[in-house]
Amino acid sequence: MLAAAMSWNKARSFVLFLIFAVTLRVTFSIPPDYARVRRALIDAELAMQIGGNGSDLSPLEQKLNGVMLDEKKKIVEAARVNGSYFPAGYDFLSSRAAMETTMSFKIIQQMPKGGVLHVHDMSLTSIDWLIQNVTYRDNLYMCVDKHYSVKFHFYSSPPSNPGCPWKLVQTYRKECGDPKVFDKLLHSNITMVTDDPAKAYPDIDAVWDKFMAYFGKVSGLMLYAPVFEDYLYEGLKQFRQDNVQYLEIRALLSPVYELNGTTHDLEWVLDVYQRVITQFVKDYPDFSGGKIIFSGHRSSSGSVVLADVKEAMILHQKYPTFMVGFDLVGQEDRFHSLIYYIDDLLYPSQQNPPVHLPYFFHAGETDWQDTATDYNLMDALLLNATRIGHGYALYKHPLLLQKIKQRQIPVEVNPISNQVLKLVDDLRNHPAASLIADNFTLVISSDDPASWEAAPLTDDFYVTFMALTGEEAGLATLKQLAKNSIWYSAMTMAEKKAAFSLWERKWDVFIKNTAKQLGLLRDRHVFAEY
Amino acid sequence: MLAAAMSWNKARSFVLFLIFAVTLRVTFSIPPDYARVRRALIDAELAMQIGGNGSDLSPLEQKLNGVMLDEKKKIVEAARVNGSYFPAGYDFLSSRAAMETTMSFKIIQQMPKGGVLHVHDMSLTSIDWLIQNVTYRDNLYMCVDKHYSVKFHFYSSPPSNPGCPWKLVQTYRKECGDPKVFDKLLHSNITMVTDDPAKAYPDIDAVWDKFMAYFGKVSGLMLYAPVFEDYLYEGLKQFRQDNVQYLEIRALLSPVYELNGTTHDLEWVLDVYQRVITQFVKDYPDFSGGKIIFSGHRSSSGSVVLADVKEAMILHQKYPTFMVGFDLVGQEDRFHSLIYYIDDLLYPSQQNPPVHLPYFFHAGETDWQDTATDYNLMDALLLNATRIGHGYALYKHPLLLQKIKQRQIPVEVNPISNQVLKLVDDLRNHPAASLIADNFTLVISSDDPASWEAAPLTDDFYVTFMALTGEEAGLATLKQLAKNSIWYSAMTMAEKKAAFSLWERKWDVFIKNTAKQLGLLRDRHVFAEY
Repeated sequence: MLAAAMSWNKARSFVLFLIFAVTLRVTFSIPPDYARVRRALIDAELAMQIGGNGSDLSPLEQKLNGVMLDEKKKIVEAARVNGSYFPAGYDFLSSRAAMETTMSFKIIQQMPKGGVLHVHDMSLTSIDWLIQNVTYRDNLYMCVDKHYSVKFHFYSSPPSNPGCPWKLVQTYRKECGDPKVFDKLLHSNITMVTDDPAKAYPDIDAVWDKFMAYFGKVSGLMLYAPVFEDYLYEGLKQFRQDNVQYLEIRALLSPVYELNGTTHDLEWVLDVYQRVITQFVKDYPDFSGGKIIFSGHRSSSGSVVLADVKEAMILHQKYPTFMVGFDLVGQEDRFHSLIYYIDDLLYPSQQNPPVHLPYFFHAGETDWQDTATDYNLMDALLLNATRIGHGYALYKHPLLLQKIKQRQIPVEVNPISNQVLKLVDDLRNHPAASLIADNFTLVISSDDPASWEAAPLTDDFYVTFMALTGEEAGLATLKQLAKNSIWYSAMTMAEKKAAFSLWERKWDVFIKNTAKQLGLLRDRHVFAEY
Repeated sequence: MLAAAMSWNKARSFVLFLIFAVTLRVTFSIPPDYARVRRALIDAELAMQIGGNGSDLSPLEQKLNGVMLDEKKKIVEAARVNGSYFPAGYDFLSSRAAMETTMSFKIIQQMPKGGVLHVHDMSLTSIDWLIQNVTYRDNLYMCVDKHYSVKFHFYSSPPSNPGCPWKLVQTYRKECGDPKVFDKLLHSNITMVTDDPAKAYPDIDAVWDKFMAYFGKVSGLMLYAPVFEDYLYEGLKQFRQDNVQYLEIRALLSPVYELNGTTHDLEWVLDVYQRVITQFVKDYPDFSGGKIIFSGHRSSSGSVVLADVKEAMILHQKYPTFMVGFDLVGQEDRFHSLIYYIDDLLYPSQQNPPVHLPYFFHAGETDWQDTATDYNLMDALLLNATRIGHGYALYKHPLLLQKIKQRQIPVEVNPISNQVLKLVDDLRNHPAASLIADNFTLVISSDDPASWEAAPLTDDFYVTFMALTGEEAGLATLKQLAKNSIWYSAMTMAEKKAAFSLWERKWDVFIKNTAKQLGLLRDRHVFAEY
């Protein structure tokens, strides 16, 4: 498949070359002295970026890098000079298909990308799986409210629900006649994907409303006890399939319910996470496992968050290497800021002796500078956050940037999420470009990939490659980002070493296999490396 | 008018307060120690921004600042928390009217804003003036091409022009019946303004095509010798009216034509600029004048640019304090980069003895990182540019940022231009926000205000206030930006001192008058300052 993509690409590149040759006069002389100084300046700056200038790459990696950069440059130059379509910059919801046909996308898909350190419990597993698997199970009821939005719940016999009466999904499907049509309708009702995102989501609140509705729909399906384990296991499979080897899941630990209506508490839920992940690692020893970051919600009252923090302290003490910390989730601009909960969040450090509860705060997921939302970044720093989720607004904070760099506080960047949720229109304007260029401690993550039907991580890596970095950033940058995702994880040092050594083996296989598929091994010089 | 705007605003703010009181619980305690450290961190960072934290402001300025920040915060918070419309972020072409109703807009309009250091010759004077004045003159012919785009030219008798036959504008207007309707049609044909910018300009090339067409239309009007002087004089009037006291004009010095078809060379054109500006300063002694930056075009061949450079050297030698330097203009992504002309641009420094021709290069007006366009920033630095035009992409260049800061190379930021010409969608994502936050040497300018019917400078200052800075940035930042525009100009030191002292007098009057209009002088404490 890669070879076919490459040869198609060669044909395409030839056409582009012809267009260029006509458009641009490419011969001009540069005085050697000037050229040398200029090259040194450019190289010095490229060396500053994550992954540097690629000089650490092996000869074979350099070859693969060359292939990827060739394609990148062709796509970029065609767009820059001739105005052709540049899908990696535009709205993911409408541009995904175009991105996924590229060779680099396929290479990045096969690339061992390390861990996903920022992803939410209810966006792990694809909508397709929910529909094809979960909605075909017995006892699943559905109702359609007056806004034509669906809700799901498993019941032995459903309660009366006047505004939105329950009916068996099986009955709905039968009445529809064609199950395929019915499943498509369900799919379109759940997904964030839409043909015309600008129209469907005119502003940030509109898109968050749809996003919240997605969670409402999925929760009725996944929080049913028999589904819950399968959902999680299937999610892990999908991430592994996308060449992710490790996960840190922001989990609400919401009550999981049984058919008879009883619900389980959050330690029970945490146990399921641990059991399923352990089982998954047993089944797939090339997977490094996962951990949980317990997450309260920004719309909660202070007393609820205090109770969450206390619960997090207990769970962290009981499962120190599995339940690794605490966060707060929900639309930052709309709900409470960290300072609102300051007493609750300072609680662990004010115990005698102080209790260390690691924080992994969402902060600065906003375009509103110097507002309460924006100053979540201040509190994340002052509350000694282990990592910062998003940190989108960091680039407007020169002092925080200094401190974050000094203390090497990793930032979890989720490019597609920031675009879908309307912080930035064109990903070439994503401010993390400036952090990547300056080698901040940073990981690329995917936030809620299932909700907008992104690959578990590949799409975010691909747009990072195409839109958040320059024409000269390739394999070395992506390789370093993969490494970062292991070193900046919440694993113990022993776990990190094991995960890293596993990743290194995967990486070597990836390089060799990809080089083979692309015919790069034919070069004698490269052969000599083996 | 200000007082009316303020009282309207008070009513509005009360409604917003009610909404807030319902939406947010605003009572929560912050431990005093934490609050102190947090405040110190925020203050230390605010002190880093252009204008600092406002502690230098006089008590009266602080009051005015308070009034402006009150309005800013109300608009920002209503948008952030309740999702209300935020015109300063959205497309200027459709949001201008909403911005201009605010009190802060009116205050900024009255504010002495110093100089405009980045503006182009053919976008100085309003389209309204062109239509109401120039198109009513004798001997003006017009033709309409097959794309319904108009062209203008003054002729005693027009040549045959088969694809686009010339006809007197007077005849067209008479045939149309209603001159108001005709003038509106002309206006809509020339302007960049459109009801639906996303539809009219789907991509950067589409908007640049329209932009180039604008220049084509205006040039036939303004380059007619009798119009040329009036155009320039009227432009200066409009800038002065908008409380700008000084201009540096990027001028192509294109041939100006007479009715009989003869044309004038560029020194003649330069002389007209000097004569008109001198006359204007005589007529309006509160104006500090203007200077010319001769500009070649990026679509020219190397030999043409070399000839331009040589011409610039001669003119700069002859008019050292008036024709102050050289630049290249035109769409950066589409045409040649600076390195293409490197021999031509190095020419002055390679003479014996070397000739100093100051460069004011457009550079980094692009979203394409590490491309030829982007590397114009490298060449601007290596060619020792006196200032950098746009520098939009600088934030992705950590090494260049260091060097630019060390050497204090001013960056000419044109926010609305960057939005209209599709580098950035929402101005809250404009990367200059990070430069302003970190006190880079920077001026705010307007590029081509007449083409998109912005005020000469007020709109760009207003969006800087509302969208490129945070909730805590107000009068001190705008005041410093005004000062920057004088100190970073190409004036001689004596001229700068004179201009600065003039600006200071204007500023004092502005503060007193505005405070009076807003009723801020009623406070005894403030009175005691006088």
